[in-house]
Amino acid sequence: MIIDIVLREFIQAEHIAIITHIQPDGDAVGSCLALAEILKEIGKDADLFCQDRIPASLSFLAGTDQFKSETAGRMSYDLAIAVDCSDKERMGACAAVFDNAGNTINIDHHISNVFFANINLVDSNAAATGEIIYQLGKARLGKLSRQTAEALYTAISTDTGSFCFSSTTPQSYRIAAELMDCGIDIEHITNMLYKTNRVERMRLLGKALQSLELYENNQIAVLTITQDDLISTGAMESETENIVNYAKDIVGVKVGILLKETADGSVKASFRSNGGVDVGKLAAQFGGGGHRAASGASMQMSVPEAKSELLTAVQTALGEMIQ
Amino acid sequence: MIIDIVLREFIQAEHIAIITHIQPDGDAVGSCLALAEILKEIGKDADLFCQDRIPASLSFLAGTDQFKSETAGRMSYDLAIAVDCSDKERMGACAAVFDNAGNTINIDHHISNVFFANINLVDSNAAATGEIIYQLGKARLGKLSRQTAEALYTAISTDTGSFCFSSTTPQSYRIAAELMDCGIDIEHITNMLYKTNRVERMRLLGKALQSLELYENNQIAVLTITQDDLISTGAMESETENIVNYAKDIVGVKVGILLKETADGSVKASFRSNGGVDVGKLAAQFGGGGHRAASGASMQMSVPEAKSELLTAVQTALGEMIQ
Repeated sequence: MIIDIVLREFIQAEHIAIITHIQPDGDAVGSCLALAEILKEIGKDADLFCQDRIPASLSFLAGTDQFKSETAGRMSYDLAIAVDCSDKERMGACAAVFDNAGNTINIDHHISNVFFANINLVDSNAAATGEIIYQLGKARLGKLSRQTAEALYTAISTDTGSFCFSSTTPQSYRIAAELMDCGIDIEHITNMLYKTNRVERMRLLGKALQSLELYENNQIAVLTITQDDLISTGAMESETENIVNYAKDIVGVKVGILLKETADGSVKASFRSNGGVDVGKLAAQFGGGGHRAASGASMQMSVPEAKSELLTAVQTALGEMIQ
Repeated sequence: MIIDIVLREFIQAEHIAIITHIQPDGDAVGSCLALAEILKEIGKDADLFCQDRIPASLSFLAGTDQFKSETAGRMSYDLAIAVDCSDKERMGACAAVFDNAGNTINIDHHISNVFFANINLVDSNAAATGEIIYQLGKARLGKLSRQTAEALYTAISTDTGSFCFSSTTPQSYRIAAELMDCGIDIEHITNMLYKTNRVERMRLLGKALQSLELYENNQIAVLTITQDDLISTGAMESETENIVNYAKDIVGVKVGILLKETADGSVKASFRSNGGVDVGKLAAQFGGGGHRAASGASMQMSVPEAKSELLTAVQTALGEMIQ
């Protein structure tokens, strides 16, 4: 069993590095923290690495202050574990720590994983890397600590859209039940994750909704956030995240678009699809990228120009959908 | 076992009525539909009763058109089953059907249930009445149909705030896993339940957020919806639901308030607490009602007057909290 092989490597290693991806999310951070806790219970200390800052919404988790972004200091780990990374590039600057390690393990759930380590524990049926860490912890320890369970619940909840996305499996729910049995307070965790907005973000959402425009018989919804909106509300650029879903989640909308004016007057656009239109292709037309259901692009033009070009492109895509 | 007694009554009955509460929610409707399906598999047809209309957001469930609000027609059922009702009054006008039945069963999960039927299957540890219906169906049928599972998932998801409220138990997650094993599409269901907003509601939310005011060092957040807002956006009064949570879910807020101006110029106020202040008591001061965390009141005064009186009352409550 691959899990036994991985656990054996844990036990044999002395200096362990755990590394996750740039722009870390709940699954990245929760999985790393849980893995570090499990290793501690086995008697191993591990150093945590992430190129970018841990989002404030995750700071309620114990240990988020332990992440290092610098690759200075110790570089000679006998084991480096990449967590939630489909390839080495996802580690950004911290890939150097991985490259310098004597042995490497890759623990991930992305179907696009390229098996870049000596040992690859990859399960694309897992809705989150946290589910794989759970299996490791359970196999070795039987019962997980409350702190580990809290980190893993965060990992799974965030990567499944709070157990709503199609990636969620019966196993995801069963693991959540087991994690609750470890004594976690899911109301507290979900309040921290989903119900703690800065007032500036709420004001920005209000501004964005005031800009709502619908086209093509309500099939296209466009929200716009200008630099003035960011300045007048005091919101941060990162607080525009997820606002595009307010466009997508309207009855009849097939494509939701958020246009964010950048400081230089150009546009960062986000696209969400309710299924019929492949917004990955749409983004690619404008030099961007993403998936069928979620994508984005940077557009070197003004907001009105970007809107006009996008509407034409989406109208074409809607036309092709009907044929 | 009480479950066996209830199942025996199902089998012995010929004409069965299932009745749920006024202003039905997802647990009420989902539990009734699932129970009717289970009875059908046992070979029994049941009539469904609800005084009020089924919310449009639940119309994706098979069978919602079967609910009758009138108490005319057949009134002589040999078995009436009250579902998700803590007392007889919760059935509104449909309590007459219950009163006329030869035998009665009360299936509910509210701790306040007053055991008003011949047989009372009440489990206050269940996060939703849907969990109790699940146990009934499983005990009798082993495996549930996809249609039954869809109704029960709706019941449990809506009553647990999508598996986030503190009422959620490990059992809630385990039942969700079993329901997924019956082949339901949870992404479709949750899209229907939570991600299908009328554009008018989105515009109303935008207006409401524009009105956001904070007091007492951001401990009190107030949103206001005027008659003008409803008219200019075309939103329905029912679409103000949950908007108060946008006030509650702001960092540091202890009490979130939504003031809705009514057609006669008075105010319907909704209150939400993040724990410290008992908003049930707050509502009671103004002739309203509710619980510690969620409550409301009708106030015969203008919006500015209501705001002023409420701020004074909440400031007092906050002061008492610190002592």
